[in-house]
Order: sequence, then C-alpha cells, then structure tokens
Amino acid sequence: MSHTTPSLLVVSAHAGDFVWRAGGAIAAAAMRGEQVTVVCLSYGERGESASQWLQGKSLEEIKALRRSEAEAAAAELGAEIEFLDLGDYPLVESQGAIAQLVDVFRRTQPTVVLTHALADPYNEDHPAAARMALRARVLAQAIGVQNSDGSFPARDEIIGAPPVFFFEPHQSEQCDFKPNLLLDITEAFERKRRAMECMPAQKHMWSYYTDLAVRRGVQVRRNAGPNLGLPHETKGEAYVRFLPQVTGELS
Amino acid sequence: MSHTTPSLLVVSAHAGDFVWRAGGAIAAAAMRGEQVTVVCLSYGERGESASQWLQGKSLEEIKALRRSEAEAAAAELGAEIEFLDLGDYPLVESQGAIAQLVDVFRRTQPTVVLTHALADPYNEDHPAAARMALRARVLAQAIGVQNSDGSFPARDEIIGAPPVFFFEPHQSEQCDFKPNLLLDITEAFERKRRAMECMPAQKHMWSYYTDLAVRRGVQVRRNAGPNLGLPHETKGEAYVRFLPQVTGELS
Amino acid sequence: MSHTTPSLLVVSAHAGDFVWRAGGAIAAAAMRGEQVTVVCLSYGERGESASQWLQGKSLEEIKALRRSEAEAAAAELGAEIEFLDLGDYPLVESQGAIAQLVDVFRRTQPTVVLTHALADPYNEDHPAAARMALRARVLAQAIGVQNSDGSFPARDEIIGAPPVFFFEPHQSEQCDFKPNLLLDITEAFERKRRAMECMPAQKHMWSYYTDLAVRRGVQVRRNAGPNLGLPHETKGEAYVRFLPQVTGELS
Amino acid sequence: MSHTTPSLLVVSAHAGDFVWRAGGAIAAAAMRGEQVTVVCLSYGERGESASQWLQGKSLEEIKALRRSEAEAAAAELGAEIEFLDLGDYPLVESQGAIAQLVDVFRRTQPTVVLTHALADPYNEDHPAAARMALRARVLAQAIGVQNSDGSFPARDEIIGAPPVFFFEPHQSEQCDFKPNLLLDITEAFERKRRAMECMPAQKHMWSYYTDLAVRRGVQVRRNAGPNLGLPHETKGEAYVRFLPQVTGELS
Amino acid sequence: MSHTTPSLLVVSAHAGDFVWRAGGAIAAAAMRGEQVTVVCLSYGERGESASQWLQGKSLEEIKALRRSEAEAAAAELGAEIEFLDLGDYPLVESQGAIAQLVDVFRRTQPTVVLTHALADPYNEDHPAAARMALRARVLAQAIGVQNSDGSFPARDEIIGAPPVFFFEPHQSEQCDFKPNLLLDITEAFERKRRAMECMPAQKHMWSYYTDLAVRRGVQVRRNAGPNLGLPHETKGEAYVRFLPQVTGELS
Amino acid sequence: MSHTTPSLLVVSAHAGDFVWRAGGAIAAAAMRGEQVTVVCLSYGERGESASQWLQGKSLEEIKALRRSEAEAAAAELGAEIEFLDLGDYPLVESQGAIAQLVDVFRRTQPTVVLTHALADPYNEDHPAAARMALRARVLAQAIGVQNSDGSFPARDEIIGAPPVFFFEPHQSEQCDFKPNLLLDITEAFERKRRAMECMPAQKHMWSYYTDLAVRRGVQVRRNAGPNLGLPHETKGEAYVRFLPQVTGELS
Repeated sequence: MSHTTPSLLVVSAHAGDFVWRAGGAIAAAAMRGEQVTVVCLSYGERGESASQWLQGKSLEEIKALRRSEAEAAAAELGAEIEFLDLGDYPLVESQGAIAQLVDVFRRTQPTVVLTHALADPYNEDHPAAARMALRARVLAQAIGVQNSDGSFPARDEIIGAPPVFFFEPHQSEQCDFKPNLLLDITEAFERKRRAMECMPAQKHMWSYYTDLAVRRGVQVRRNAGPNLGLPHETKGEAYVRFLPQVTGELS
Repeated sequence: MSHTTPSLLVVSAHAGDFVWRAGGAIAAAAMRGEQVTVVCLSYGERGESASQWLQGKSLEEIKALRRSEAEAAAAELGAEIEFLDLGDYPLVESQGAIAQLVDVFRRTQPTVVLTHALADPYNEDHPAAARMALRARVLAQAIGVQNSDGSFPARDEIIGAPPVFFFEPHQSEQCDFKPNLLLDITEAFERKRRAMECMPAQKHMWSYYTDLAVRRGVQVRRNAGPNLGLPHETKGEAYVRFLPQVTGELS
Repeated sequence: MSHTTPSLLVVSAHAGDFVWRAGGAIAAAAMRGEQVTVVCLSYGERGESASQWLQGKSLEEIKALRRSEAEAAAAELGAEIEFLDLGDYPLVESQGAIAQLVDVFRRTQPTVVLTHALADPYNEDHPAAARMALRARVLAQAIGVQNSDGSFPARDEIIGAPPVFFFEPHQSEQCDFKPNLLLDITEAFERKRRAMECMPAQKHMWSYYTDLAVRRGVQVRRNAGPNLGLPHETKGEAYVRFLPQVTGELS
Repeated sequence: MSHTTPSLLVVSAHAGDFVWRAGGAIAAAAMRGEQVTVVCLSYGERGESASQWLQGKSLEEIKALRRSEAEAAAAELGAEIEFLDLGDYPLVESQGAIAQLVDVFRRTQPTVVLTHALADPYNEDHPAAARMALRARVLAQAIGVQNSDGSFPARDEIIGAPPVFFFEPHQSEQCDFKPNLLLDITEAFERKRRAMECMPAQKHMWSYYTDLAVRRGVQVRRNAGPNLGLPHETKGEAYVRFLPQVTGELS
Repeated sequence: MSHTTPSLLVVSAHAGDFVWRAGGAIAAAAMRGEQVTVVCLSYGERGESASQWLQGKSLEEIKALRRSEAEAAAAELGAEIEFLDLGDYPLVESQGAIAQLVDVFRRTQPTVVLTHALADPYNEDHPAAARMALRARVLAQAIGVQNSDGSFPARDEIIGAPPVFFFEPHQSEQCDFKPNLLLDITEAFERKRRAMECMPAQKHMWSYYTDLAVRRGVQVRRNAGPNLGLPHETKGEAYVRFLPQVTGELS
Repeated sequence: MSHTTPSLLVVSAHAGDFVWRAGGAIAAAAMRGEQVTVVCLSYGERGESASQWLQGKSLEEIKALRRSEAEAAAAELGAEIEFLDLGDYPLVESQGAIAQLVDVFRRTQPTVVLTHALADPYNEDHPAAARMALRARVLAQAIGVQNSDGSFPARDEIIGAPPVFFFEPHQSEQCDFKPNLLLDITEAFERKRRAMECMPAQKHMWSYYTDLAVRRGVQVRRNAGPNLGLPHETKGEAYVRFLPQVTGELS
C-alpha cells in the first residue's frame, strides 16, 4: 500500500545470527534490487566464539575475525552491514543503544524490519536485541525525539510503521515461536548457502540450517496446497509477523 | 503463488453474520470480479430473531423472512448464497453437516475461506460453525473421502489448502480474537452499508458496525504508518489468519 | 444493578461436588435469605463411589445412598436440590440434557450461576457439566427456544444474563484455574462443615477442604490488605468469574 | 469490606492518558464525593505532541501547554493532579521514580488504583508506567521501606492492598487487554466529555472515545442481561482487574 | 516408584503414526525387555493413503495393505499391535470406542502411555484419538465402570495413574507442541529406521524423520550440557509430558 | 546421563525463602550425601521483617538476625549457605549481581538449580532473583565470559546445562505456577520442619507449609496412581521444570 522505496533493516544481536536465520529473506530482497542494511549489535565475541577462545585468541582478535566473516557473508547476500560493538554475553539494554538504533531507523527508512523473537531461554541477548529494536522503531516515529547525540531536530525524517518480522530461533518451540509466515526462499537459497560458508568455524551449522530450510520448504508446500505445483526442492524460512498485517486483499 | 481462479467461500452460522462481519471483504472480492459463495448453516431463526417471535410469527415465517433478507444482502454484496437449514440455538455439530460442507468446498474450490472465530462465550453456534468449516476443509483435501451421499469417487476435484480467515465476533476481546490482519474496505464500504440496510429489524446494528469500520480504519492507518497518505475516511475490517501465511516476499 | 429476586443456581456434575467446592457460597446465600437450587447431573455412582463398589453394593443401592447424602448436605446448607440422573463416568454431553437444563434455568431465574471449571484432566465429567450449563444459560435467554419436551412457547420467562462463577477443582493448577475472586465464607463455614459431615464415606475430605478454606482465607486477608482488621480465622473459597463483571463502582 | 476513606489514585504515563481512558471512573468517584489524585509521570511532550512540534514550539512551551490542558481536564473531572516530569519517549523505569511513587501511595492512601495495562506494542511508556505503579504499591506496604529521600521511618502510614484496575489501551486486542470489568459511566459521561474538550489539539479523539463509550455501554447492557432496564444510551469504560476480587457476596 | 511390570501402551490414530513419531521410544522399551502394545484406531485408509487411491485400489485393499505394513513395522520395533478399525477422515469420537479402549487399558495395565497431542489444525483425527485415550485412561481407573460389552464387574484389574506422553506432530509449532522431554533414542534408532522402511509408499518420510531425529538429538545434547560427552550422532524424539512428573529426586 | 558429582544450587531472593519452599528438596539431597549450596541474594530485611521493624530494631540488627536464622535453618537441612547482601524491597537486577552469580555457578558446578518462579505479582524480588539466576547460568557456560572482578580467564571451569526447577510461590495460581513435577519429600520432611522452626518470628508459617506439604503429598499419591502403595502420610513439594527434561527412558 506504500509507494516508498523498499528498504529492509535487519537487527541482529551477534555477528552471525542474520545469516543462519534470515539469510534467505535478505538475499531475496537483494535479488529484487532492494536496499538491505544489517546492524549487528555485537560481534558475539564472548558467547558464540568458544572455538576461538579455546585456541587462545584475544578478545580483539576474535572481534576482528567475527567482523570479517560477517562482512563476507553480508556481501554474499547483497547487504550493507554495520556494527554497534555493544558487547555480548550479556548484551545489555541501554537507552544509549536504543538511541543509536533510532538514528539507524531514520537513516535507513525501513519498509520491513527483521529481528529476533522476544523469548529465548537459551540466550537472553536475542530478546534483548529484539526489545531494543522494537523500542527504537517506535521512538523513530516521533518528531519530538532527538538524535542520539542529543541534537535536535532529527537529522533524518521520522519513519512510518514498517512491519516487523521475528526470524527463527535455534530451538523454536522453547522460544514460544509459532510461525505465522512461511517464506519461499528457493531461489535465494544458493546465496544463503554461500553466506553460511563464510563461517568456517561453524561448519556443523551449514547442514543444520540446510535441513531446516528443507523442512520449512515442506511446510511452504503443505500450507500452499497440493495443487499449486511447487517443486519438491522448495526451501523455506519461518517468521512471526509481530503486528497486524495491513492489506487491501485477503490471500 | 497460485494460478487458480479466485473463489471466496464464506461459512456463516446464521443468515445475518456474513453481512455485519465480512461484508467488506465479500464486496471487495466481488468488485474485483471474483466468485463469492456464502453458505448459511442456519437462518438464525431461534437465536437471532427475538423481535419476530415477539410479533407472534411462526417458525416457518421467520425462516422465510430471514432467508429473503439474506438473499437481498448477498445480492448487494455481489455474492451467491445457499442455505443448509441445519437449525440454530443450538447449531448442532454433526458428521452429516460436515459432509455437506465437504461437497460445497469441492464444488466451489475456494482460494480463500472466511468463517467465525473458534471461541464465543455469548453464542456457541459461532464456534460450532467454525469447527465444521475447518474439518470440512481438511476432509475435502483427501481423495479417499466420499461425497455426502456416500457415493464415490468424489463428484468434484479435491481442493488445495486455501487460507482461512476468522471474521470479527461481536465482543472481540471476550472471544480471544486478536486481529492479525486489518483489511482496508474503504471502497467496498458503501456496498456493505447497503447490504446492512437489507436487515431492517436490526437497524441499531447499522451504526454499530459503521462505527466499528471507522475504528478498524483508524487501525489500518496506524499500522500502515503516518506517511502513507491513507485518507481519514479509511474503513476497515479485522481478521485473524488461522494458518501460516505462505509468501515469496515479506511485506 | 438488578432488582430481581436473588436466586442462586448451582450445576454440579456429581452428587458431592457442590458441598466441597461451593458449600460456603451456598450457605452464605441461604443465610441471607436467598433462594438456592442445586442441580446434580449425576449421582457420581460409577466414578466417585469406589468404597461402595468394594463393599459389593449394587448400582441402584449406590445411587440411592449418594442421593440421600446429597439431600442431607443440601438441607444443612439451606438449598433445594434436584437430580437429573444422567449417568457418570462418563457424563455424556447431549442436546437432551442441555434442554432439561434450559427448563431449570427458566424455572429458577438465577441471578448467579455456579458450576465447574472448563478444564480438568483428572475428571472429564466436570468440564462436560460446565459446558452444558453454559450452553443452557445462553439458550434460556432466547425467546425462540422451546421447552425440553418440544412444546412452545416457553413455559417460563426467558432469563437475563446472570454472572457465572466456576468453583474450585481438586487440583487447581492442573485445571488452569486461576482464581479471580476470593469469597469470605467465615460466617458460613460452620454450615459447610456440617454439610461435609453428611458424607461419612469421604471423611478424609473433611480436613482436606477445611485446610483449603483456611488457605483461601489467608489469601482473602492478604488481598484485602493488612489494615482491614479481618480476623485470623477467616475462611475462604476461590472462584473464577467467567464473564466481565458489570458494575457502577470500582472496588 | 473496608472502613477506610475512599481514595482513588490514577497513575498516568502522559498528561492526557487519564482523560481518554479513565475519565468516566474518575468523574464518577468525584461525583460520589471521593478523593481522586492523578499522577502524571510525564507530560507526553515528545511522543504525544506531534502537532506542537510541527508548529515549532520548544520543549518547555510544549510541557507547559500539556500541563495546563491536563490541569483543566482534571478540574472538570473533579480530581487533584500532580506531575513527576520524568520525561517520555522513552519513559525510563528507575528506582528513583518508583521511590517517588511510594511516597505518593503512602500520602494518598488509595483504596483503588488505576493505571495502564502491562502490554502495549505501540507505546512502551504505558507498560513502563504500569510496572512502576505496581512495584511502588507493593513497596509502600512494607514498614521497612524508606522515604524517597532516604529518610526513615516513613513519613506516612504504610498502605493496605488496594485493588488495581488497568484502563483500556488504544488498540485493546494488540495489548492482550481482555476486559473483566465493565463500568457503567452513563451519569459521569458528560463530565468526561467536557474533560476531553480541554484537549483541543486532539479533537479527533473526542468522537473516537465517545464512540468507544457507546460500544462499551452496549456491552454493559449485554452482560447485565436484557431484563434489567438499562437505558439505550448507557455509556461504559472497560477495565482489567489485576488481582483477585475479595468479597463477601457473589454478584 | 512403582514395582509393577513395565508395559508401554501406544494409542495411534492411523496405522503409520506410531512409527514416525514414537518408533524410537517403542524400540527402546522393547530393547529393555518391556511389553509394548500399539493400538491403531484406524488404518488411515481415507486420509493417509492418497497414492493407493490414485492407483484405483478399493477401500478393503487399502485397509489390508496398511495393516500388513503396520504389522511389519511393529515387528521391527518389537511391539504387539492391534487394530480397532474405527474409520478415519474423520475418526469420530464415540462412547463405544472409548469403552473399547477402557478394555485395552485394563488388559495391558500400562505403566506408560503414548498418544497424539491435543491440537492439530492439519488433522483433527489426531486430537480425537488423544482425547479418547485420555478419557479411557481415567475411566479404566474406576472400579464402577463396566466392560465395553456392558458386563460387570470388570474382566481385568483397574489401572493406576500411568504417565501420559504426547508424541510429536508433523508441524509442531502449529500444534502448540512445546516439548518438555527429549528422549535419547540413539541406540534404538536403527530399529526405528528399519520400521520406517516397512512403509515403502512414504519413502520421502524416511529422510524427513531421520533429519528430525538428528535435530532432536542436537537438542538432547544441548539441554544435557556440553560436558556430558554425548556423541555427535545422538538421535532424539521430542515429547510433551501431560501430567506432573512424580519423583523422589530432582534431576 | 551425567557422571558429574551431584551438586544442588539454590538461589533465594531473601533469607527465608529456601526453607519454606524448597526445604524438602534440599534436605533430601543432603540426606543422599550431595553437596548443597544456598545463595541468599538479600536478607529480606526490608520486605519480610515487619515484626522486627515494629520492635524498633535497626537495619543492621535485622540483617544480623535474619542471617543467623537462615544459617541455623541451612544447618538443619544440611546445606552450605552464603549471602550476597544485595538489598531487598526492591532487589535490583544488575550486571554486577549477575556476574557474582556467574562466579558462584562456576565454583559450585551445580547439577541441579532451584530458584523462584518468573512471575509473582505480590513480590517482584522473587522474579528478579529468578531472572538473575537464569542469566548467570547461561553466562557461566561460556568460556569467553570473565570473572566478576573482570579478570580472565575464568577461575573455575565453565558449567554444563544443569536442569532448573522453580519452587512454589506463596499464591501459586496468581503466579502462573503450574507444577509439572511433584517431589516426594516424606522422608526429608522432619528436617524441613526443624528448619522452619529456626524462624520463630514466622510461627504461623510452620503450619501453613506443613499443610501445603500434606496437600502436595495427596497429589503425589494421586498422580502416581492408587495401586502404588504410597503411605497416607506422604509429603510433597511442587516444582516447575523450566527446560525440557533429557532422559533415556520414559517414566
């Protein structure tokens, strides 16, 4: 219903999350020529880099490595990427971090927002990222809210009310993640696979998330109906739409 | 994602429900040239016709009156209408009624299904209708399931997996009705209003459901964002999508 | 807000349920001079009479015994009692039973209705009774609904919309029973105790439900606040109000 | 059950919330001669004053304007009003703010508390206000908790356990707001309307909340039953009672 | 805590369900020397045999084929199997079917019960089977409940209160299936695989359920902790325990 | 499935909580020879010591008294005890407190963790303690996370994924506490009773929690089945297992 330029904004707690969980949606948007921006709140340097720590790497080395891998993956997917370096394990919610995200929302003018789900008993950083993304989205809509450096008026336009989708956590059922949208990523999957392969330390994840894409693809076909001729190799990603869909036509 | 002919099927417990609750969606589909079929499981002769009973009308008179009003309303909306005359208050779930609905699903080959929500403490007929519609939809997908007269094979093709939307109950919050889809019915609203006016005994409902359309229209605008230029007179209807949306693009 | 004569209707699956679970509310109403009617859908002859079966009693003997105990308990509480003898374990939902309850609702014109909660994994008879009570209550409001013998018009007036309260199941938490009303039964408790003592075969229940009254009494005091001077021996019963409270004053 | 002086305390995130959402309850209490205190945690200067910002007003001008409008509305309703000026968008939860509220609770000795609901995806300030109100209410009950300036013992008496009611958010269903209390505000509505008219910049809200009062009034009538003779112009407000109701009589 | 002989009872809606969803638990129990009984309520002849219908087979041919496949699979798993032939699509709940299950419960004296989950929007037969299993389990505990042929007293002993576990549906999240138990089936998996291979018409399911076993195995390892030395090839099945676990030791 | 030394860690918001709510589990573990460590985050000096404040005691006196009572109770139960002295009413969540708990987790290497439930409208300190315990447990698993004094690498080994159990709040149903585990504490109860008697100021709690143990004992027997020969004096404690149980055998 909008005539604004498509712009996808992905808010990721750690440097790898956006690849495994939303790589298909990102690649598909980029393949349609849309602008895609990934914001990594941290590098996942403490909580998701066990093998590097075991090798005796330093904190700075690990951050640099994670950054370069994420940059390579974003490039494969066709996305811009930026890093707020807020630290992880824990990723601490703060007004300062939310204010930085307000700037990002206004600068990128997203028409679609992707982030983590609001519950994850295995990793509190994920819901913390989601809460900050949701709060920043609302603040960025208000003309009275300042820039993150306290200056006023806002450097960029306020934003509209872009839809928000939560991407899939590692153990969906324990995160009360009940998908209400199944995305067909068949054509984008090859790019997602290449992006995953930019993370050589997590090789076991490549097949895990390939299998998941197959399973979600089965559900794409099952929910679309048997007579629609979707191919057997359909790949999918699951999402939860957070706010009501607005549409002019039921389908 | 489908290339089938659009066909909207509306399963309504009583003769009036489809008008108040889904009249906008029906009119909009008809205005796009789609086939629309309304199935009324009962006339609402016992539970929703208090004023006729008070006037001393007989059961048959009341059923005939409700039927003709519903036919007039359907005509205004641009829909075909049929009646299963299963009785109301209570509308009793039965295998026979479900089997009749299986026939209807296969005959109309719906690409979209509308029905009541699954909870309504004020009127158990509504969830009974919804449960029968949902069961018939699944049975109609199976090649091994007979026609309602026991003959086999099925007279019509099996169906795919059309999306199901629940329309809004009278007291939404008491029915655990949390809309996840807001439909813009601005252009279709005039037809809906004329269809409502085919129900002269329920004149107080005309303004009630006009006000509701305004309120849901405010939410259409609010969830679409301030900068999208939707007009102030936007009208809306609220729905709950029952199964996951299948799509190739997030929006 | 009503000027109708107070009338309490209690719908109980088995012959003993109303005593353990709602005896305090019943006695309190009777002590205020209100009319109270208890309807037992079954005697609990198969599911709640293990000791009688072990003694080799016949079905008819057990039903007679359960009936006389329930009559004695009702007398202690100050209530009228009637029995529909629908059988238990299972208590089967049927249109006929609901229709009999419609007659009862119209005859007794309840201003308050008590029944079981809607979930009980340990005894499906309880939610079956609740569902039948709720459906009968709605049907009894409609002028178009017949008497249970098929005659028409209804022998008694249709009813209003009396509030419904679920009394407490045996294992509350497993029944998703989250009390939203705590009833002070301190003054009525002695009558409840005497009514419980009309059930000699279930002597272990006397102390169980006395302890529960103490515990719910602690919660009455705790939720009313420390400064209200409720005595330490406060006794309570817990309820779930099913539909919204209607009131002219918050308190 | 209490003999304390009635005192209503309303904790409002922004300067206007108490008018739209609880104006009827406030006016009704005042009309009964009860003490009413409204505490506005912020002026809503950043998040709810878009038109003033567009007119180029300064932060201080906007705060002053919002304050004077709120004071006028409170006067129409018959309530005292105070402002904590904690800032909005975001309204940040803090121990200092909670401590200030503890002082207010002890000073006003509320017998009823009104505040926002605990979820609102469209405005996180609202649940933040509610959480602070709930925490302050519990702390104010404990004799060991200091005054907000650190002095001890407490300047005022500790409080009891006043009931808490959440008033209705703008989009109820998206806030998991399922009303369990419908308040008849028919007689108080004229005052509420006059209070709303003290907010000239939000003229579109006047009719929105008048319509809502009508709709909630329909539900007041519907849940009270057809035979109670409530007038057709009944107006209502919807609330969620947070903790169990304590009562000596079911009704 | 019990000294009864281990006996596993599996209630399966259709002839294949027990293999895909609980094959690991069944094989593991059999490998420990326990008695295992599978009861198939129907053959899945209408709803899960599309390919046979497309080949023009008759109803009786399809039932015979499904039966022989299920018998072969049960033999691979080490289980007894019986068939109630109640029909499917729909599997209709009835008192007669429940009574037959009561007989089975008393005859097999289960110490553990497995059945479907209580919700499945894609196949109502599954929750219907679960509801009947749960009701039969409770009725079988009561000494007053007859045999299915109406004779009395019961032919076999009444049963205790065996724990019930729901096995995993095809689309877990849409069935509100939140596993609270992860079963390590590593050693039993080879038998499960052989049992799956007894269903040649559903070859695509072999890899689907092998992948699922790997994914649940990852969760077994993740929830047991990194330092427990579980092998990388761990296989798992997910379950929901329905009633509280009773234990003498937390672990 | 683990071969690690049993170690029970109990995270308690105030000095008394672990006695009333988990004393049976603690004593049972100690009686089996396991190591048990109780960490009290505060002494409960402001929120749970009304009688001492009324006697005019000072803050330091109250803290000392609460500490010595808790030490005596822990000794009766057979547990080590330590105090973080973080203050109560409110117990404020902080990164520093979480970091201290990370140290405790790594030092004690728990195989089982007990803490409060995640909701308690009557006392926000309880869920605050639970959230901090859960976060510390996850951080303590990561090799990249520092000691609380900022030093690195960690002084002790990282931990595995010990199961977490929530013990029972004072008003279970209002805390959404639905027990999924009933612990038989019959043999340990005498020690729990002696530990309760170390709290002379809360004498009314002795009988309250003895009654609760009886009631939970009834449920232990009821959920284990009538034929298992559990004695009538069975005592119990109720728990909620937070994450999926991992097991090699259903029971």
